[in-house]
Amino acid sequence: MTQTYILTPIAGVVGLAIAGAILASITKKSGGEGKVAEIAEKIHKGAMVFMKREFVLISLFAVVIAALIFFFQKQEYAAYQAYAFLFGCLASSFSGFVGMFTATKANVRTTIAAKEEGPASALGVAFFGGSVMGLTVASMGLVGLGTLFYIFISGESKPHVAEIMEGFAMGASLVALFYRVGGGIFTKAADVGADLVGKVEAGIPEDDPRNPGVIADNVGDNVGDVAGMGSDIFESYCGAQIATIAIAGAAGARLAETQGPTLFDKVGIAAEKAESLMFLPLALTSVGLVCSILGILLVKMMASKEPASALRIGTIGAAALYILAAFITCAQFGFNSNPAIAVLAGAVGGIIIGLVTEHYTGGKPVRDLAEQGETGVATVMISGLALGMQSVAIPLLTLAATISVSFHFVGLYGVGLAAVGMLGTVGITMAIDAYGPVADNAGGIAEMAAMGPETRKITDGLDAVGNTTAAIGKGFAIGAAGLSALALITAFIQKTNIDLNLADNSVLATFFVGLFIGGIVPFLNGAITMTAVGSAAFEMINEIRRQFREIPGLLDGKAEPETDKCVDIATRAATKKMVLPALLAVGTPIVVGFGFNAVNGMGAVALTGTLVGALLGCILMALMMSNAGGAWDNAKKHVEDGNCGGKGSEVHAACVVGDTVGDPFKDTSGPSMNIIINVMAIVSLVIAGLL
Amino acid sequence: MTQTYILTPIAGVVGLAIAGAILASITKKSGGEGKVAEIAEKIHKGAMVFMKREFVLISLFAVVIAALIFFFQKQEYAAYQAYAFLFGCLASSFSGFVGMFTATKANVRTTIAAKEEGPASALGVAFFGGSVMGLTVASMGLVGLGTLFYIFISGESKPHVAEIMEGFAMGASLVALFYRVGGGIFTKAADVGADLVGKVEAGIPEDDPRNPGVIADNVGDNVGDVAGMGSDIFESYCGAQIATIAIAGAAGARLAETQGPTLFDKVGIAAEKAESLMFLPLALTSVGLVCSILGILLVKMMASKEPASALRIGTIGAAALYILAAFITCAQFGFNSNPAIAVLAGAVGGIIIGLVTEHYTGGKPVRDLAEQGETGVATVMISGLALGMQSVAIPLLTLAATISVSFHFVGLYGVGLAAVGMLGTVGITMAIDAYGPVADNAGGIAEMAAMGPETRKITDGLDAVGNTTAAIGKGFAIGAAGLSALALITAFIQKTNIDLNLADNSVLATFFVGLFIGGIVPFLNGAITMTAVGSAAFEMINEIRRQFREIPGLLDGKAEPETDKCVDIATRAATKKMVLPALLAVGTPIVVGFGFNAVNGMGAVALTGTLVGALLGCILMALMMSNAGGAWDNAKKHVEDGNCGGKGSEVHAACVVGDTVGDPFKDTSGPSMNIIINVMAIVSLVIAGLL
Repeated sequence: MTQTYILTPIAGVVGLAIAGAILASITKKSGGEGKVAEIAEKIHKGAMVFMKREFVLISLFAVVIAALIFFFQKQEYAAYQAYAFLFGCLASSFSGFVGMFTATKANVRTTIAAKEEGPASALGVAFFGGSVMGLTVASMGLVGLGTLFYIFISGESKPHVAEIMEGFAMGASLVALFYRVGGGIFTKAADVGADLVGKVEAGIPEDDPRNPGVIADNVGDNVGDVAGMGSDIFESYCGAQIATIAIAGAAGARLAETQGPTLFDKVGIAAEKAESLMFLPLALTSVGLVCSILGILLVKMMASKEPASALRIGTIGAAALYILAAFITCAQFGFNSNPAIAVLAGAVGGIIIGLVTEHYTGGKPVRDLAEQGETGVATVMISGLALGMQSVAIPLLTLAATISVSFHFVGLYGVGLAAVGMLGTVGITMAIDAYGPVADNAGGIAEMAAMGPETRKITDGLDAVGNTTAAIGKGFAIGAAGLSALALITAFIQKTNIDLNLADNSVLATFFVGLFIGGIVPFLNGAITMTAVGSAAFEMINEIRRQFREIPGLLDGKAEPETDKCVDIATRAATKKMVLPALLAVGTPIVVGFGFNAVNGMGAVALTGTLVGALLGCILMALMMSNAGGAWDNAKKHVEDGNCGGKGSEVHAACVVGDTVGDPFKDTSGPSMNIIINVMAIVSLVIAGLL
Repeated sequence: MTQTYILTPIAGVVGLAIAGAILASITKKSGGEGKVAEIAEKIHKGAMVFMKREFVLISLFAVVIAALIFFFQKQEYAAYQAYAFLFGCLASSFSGFVGMFTATKANVRTTIAAKEEGPASALGVAFFGGSVMGLTVASMGLVGLGTLFYIFISGESKPHVAEIMEGFAMGASLVALFYRVGGGIFTKAADVGADLVGKVEAGIPEDDPRNPGVIADNVGDNVGDVAGMGSDIFESYCGAQIATIAIAGAAGARLAETQGPTLFDKVGIAAEKAESLMFLPLALTSVGLVCSILGILLVKMMASKEPASALRIGTIGAAALYILAAFITCAQFGFNSNPAIAVLAGAVGGIIIGLVTEHYTGGKPVRDLAEQGETGVATVMISGLALGMQSVAIPLLTLAATISVSFHFVGLYGVGLAAVGMLGTVGITMAIDAYGPVADNAGGIAEMAAMGPETRKITDGLDAVGNTTAAIGKGFAIGAAGLSALALITAFIQKTNIDLNLADNSVLATFFVGLFIGGIVPFLNGAITMTAVGSAAFEMINEIRRQFREIPGLLDGKAEPETDKCVDIATRAATKKMVLPALLAVGTPIVVGFGFNAVNGMGAVALTGTLVGALLGCILMALMMSNAGGAWDNAKKHVEDGNCGGKGSEVHAACVVGDTVGDPFKDTSGPSMNIIINVMAIVSLVIAGLL
């Protein structure tokens, strides 16, 4: 059997090789000359500056945390867990770096393809640019988790393979904090700063090369939707697999005490084959990577058709293949089809949540929202907030149904598998997410380099498609993060093995106290991140104003703006302002867990309450904020397309305010919730043994 | 012992008599003549129209629900519970009616006192007007609960006294749905409609008698802050006492199975005296009523001083007396001081939450918020939302601490007592809440009757004080509602007596499914109520526009507006639009409970999850929305007081938008959360026996 396990890291390496080949094919294309090349180079360098600076900081934190694990995790596997943690940091950082590198190479090549070869070719370049990120995320996950599993499943560390792998997930979480939370602050500070001074005060168009903030703005698009989204998905992807492995491991270990049908009965295998239960999630994601690659090829083949449907057919095709493959994989391992049904439930659940997100951020609700602009800003705000609140209903019911179905067939293990099912084809879903900023940047470069309305029209078309797919991706990311965190919390409860009977009075009281503390986290995180964007944007605004004032001839196009200073400000703000949310996410489980242990010896109960409260709050706020923000954004675009009075009308002005409020909602605070809850869950799981 | 029990309804009757005496002393004063009397009469009649129409509807629903209890509650006490339910409906409706009657008599008399006798006398009238409501709420609670307890604690129904009393709480909840949720829609529809057409379109000042919506607007102030707030507090007040009685009853019944120290050990009495544990909450609220009356006298004595400090000294004085009295009461019953410490924890917790609310809606955060107006509407929105999110932290920590302390001393019974402690002095806290709309109306009448700037200045001063105290009252109401719902949920869990061990896999999965469903409720309720205000205001706007268009000479003051039509529209909207939130609150527990019972026989587990999710979500959203709304309101007032550019500046325009968004936040959606969770909890408790 052990020989089979090597297939997972091999699949990862193959995936990386394909990603490398695609990257090579992109960089082989012409990167343009003169002005175009110069602008592209600035964006690329800005992105690299951000990544390097974050990496230095991540390294510092990583070394400290690894040392803490090494010395304070009083278990025999502490050292391995510390190494796995560092490995996780490296794997996620590497994915982010490759994704950012590729995206900032693909953007200008998309522009040039749009100009010289037309829309189909431009779509191909942009989508392939995103694919490198998608494939790298999935592949690095397989390389990392697969290698750890292969090494530690044999020998004396076998009972602790899940714990060791948790270190990897914690590494992924640390990186996600920096890229997703910090990155969310970067992207909006740059966006708001550049727009406010450039468009509103100086009266120059968006993406105008005279604007000192414009490079930071374009870098920010990549930071948010490539590095940020990638590390977010990477975290959920690894978390889901590890939680499932941990649940399977616990099922094997506790076999003797289980009453009624065991997990082994449910999947139809003998208890001796416990290991294959642990390997199943890795097998599924390995197969999922193959399906993603096939999906990417499908998009490539359809690229000459309408771009939106090409992307949709690729995604749905990959998911369908994956579901089919899950049934075959289960049969191969000698399971009945129950585990595959859990995978199916997760995959379908993910698609439903994605489609609901698309509806609320792109369908009739958005057109209705735009019409509210006729009675002013206030009604746009009220309706947008109401829309966001309403939009949580179906996704949460979907999650509830997914849990019910998957639990019915394979117990808690099934809930983990559902998360794996939702995330199995990240190779292509992430590709489509990362496609968005490439297309967006391509438009920015076309504008800055004055490449004419023809080119701009093509890139705008690609960008519009990207916005819709990004919305689906966001909903999907929230659902996956929620389910992955749920699986981790489940694993935490199993591991602590405590009395959690709510019918017991002191358990109930402690649980409620923990619950209330947990409920604070998402709201406080929302407040902190929204305020952070405001104050970071303020610094940016001052710097841009200073340059317009002090650099002679800048507005006339006779002098160059100091764009690197703006990148620098956004980078510094991003790192500085993510400290509080990070402390909140890492500190809350530690304080609650050890604090209540000291007070009434019920740290694990209180922490369960905290995790439950934070999980619910984070999912609700993430959905509400992302969807309200997305709807405001698209309502503005709907008006700009000439509806409800069009650009410059009062309705437009009202929608612009909605969009400005929605920006930190959808790109900073909302997505940060995914990270916060997963960090809390993984930290809890790691300290569970000490409670 | 039984003879002692009669003291509670007697205390209630004495309280009612005092309230009646105060009411007589108010109506004895001159109600003015001519224009003043005419306007006051219109407001009074409008308020009575609303109350009567709601009462007819409540009666219809009440009869149907009573019949359902009578026929489907398969317990021997079903008939008694049905009667108690009707009694609860009547008691709450009566309180609301008396409060509204008094408030709309006191308003004009406050105006006249302000004109003829000066500020001290005006404060006296306004506060006494509010006191009638406060005393009636507390007294009707004691009459209702005390009578039921006295009747049913002896004889064969004794084991079911708590269940029978739950019927009373359910009646209170039904009325609260109509007055608080429907009333919240009424008040904001009228407010927005009158302001938008009157102030913005027609360019006439606020409270101008030519505005057809102005009477509805003034009626709305009373509907929201007298009938709405009163029924909200009445519901929590009764819920807290009944939950505590139920917990005490369960402790007595389960004595044999309890391991470790029992509740009786904790309070230091013999188990035979179980009944006095059940009576203690009623004894405490009876004593609390006396303390409230003393507090009201204190305010009256201090009325010549600065109004804000008079109100504060009265409230804090009553609370301090109440805490002292709690210790004495416990000693009288032969308990140790542990129960009194739980009361103390609740009372202190309530004061802290109130002060935090005051800080966020009146302190430095509000001034900072107003300054955000300098960078436009969007920053006012972002900062206000961030402020609201941040403001949940300390109140939730306070609730967590209150639960911890009270549980530590007297177990879950203590958590119920803490709620009773928080609500013990509602006689005066509710008086101060109801004082607000009286002072506000007094100003409106002064304006409409053109009584000159001198009078207006006095009433404005009284109104400003009322705004601050109302903010404290709102925070207090949320804390009390949360703690009361928590006690009810605890009673529900005790009553179902099911396996709630989260370490059991199927319990955990079902709990999470229920949790996610519960989390939807507050968000969906927020979306529904915010949208309801918008569409109700829209009807109102059309009617006011029609009158300005079709009634010749209206704008010149030569013709009378048809104000009753506007009252009618607001009333109809209020009743129509509260159906969905009511269905959500009543239907969710029934569907989840019976639905999961049918599917996997775990209805009680799923419903526990739903209640936990809804409780957390409702408290968080209630705090966030009320505080953000209050802060926006006061930021606007801060600017209107001449700060940040003053009235008419761009900052002012930005803050007006904030206030418009904040209105449904703080007066409709936010407060409705209190009712939703309490209705869910009480419905669950009533159906618990059937699950």
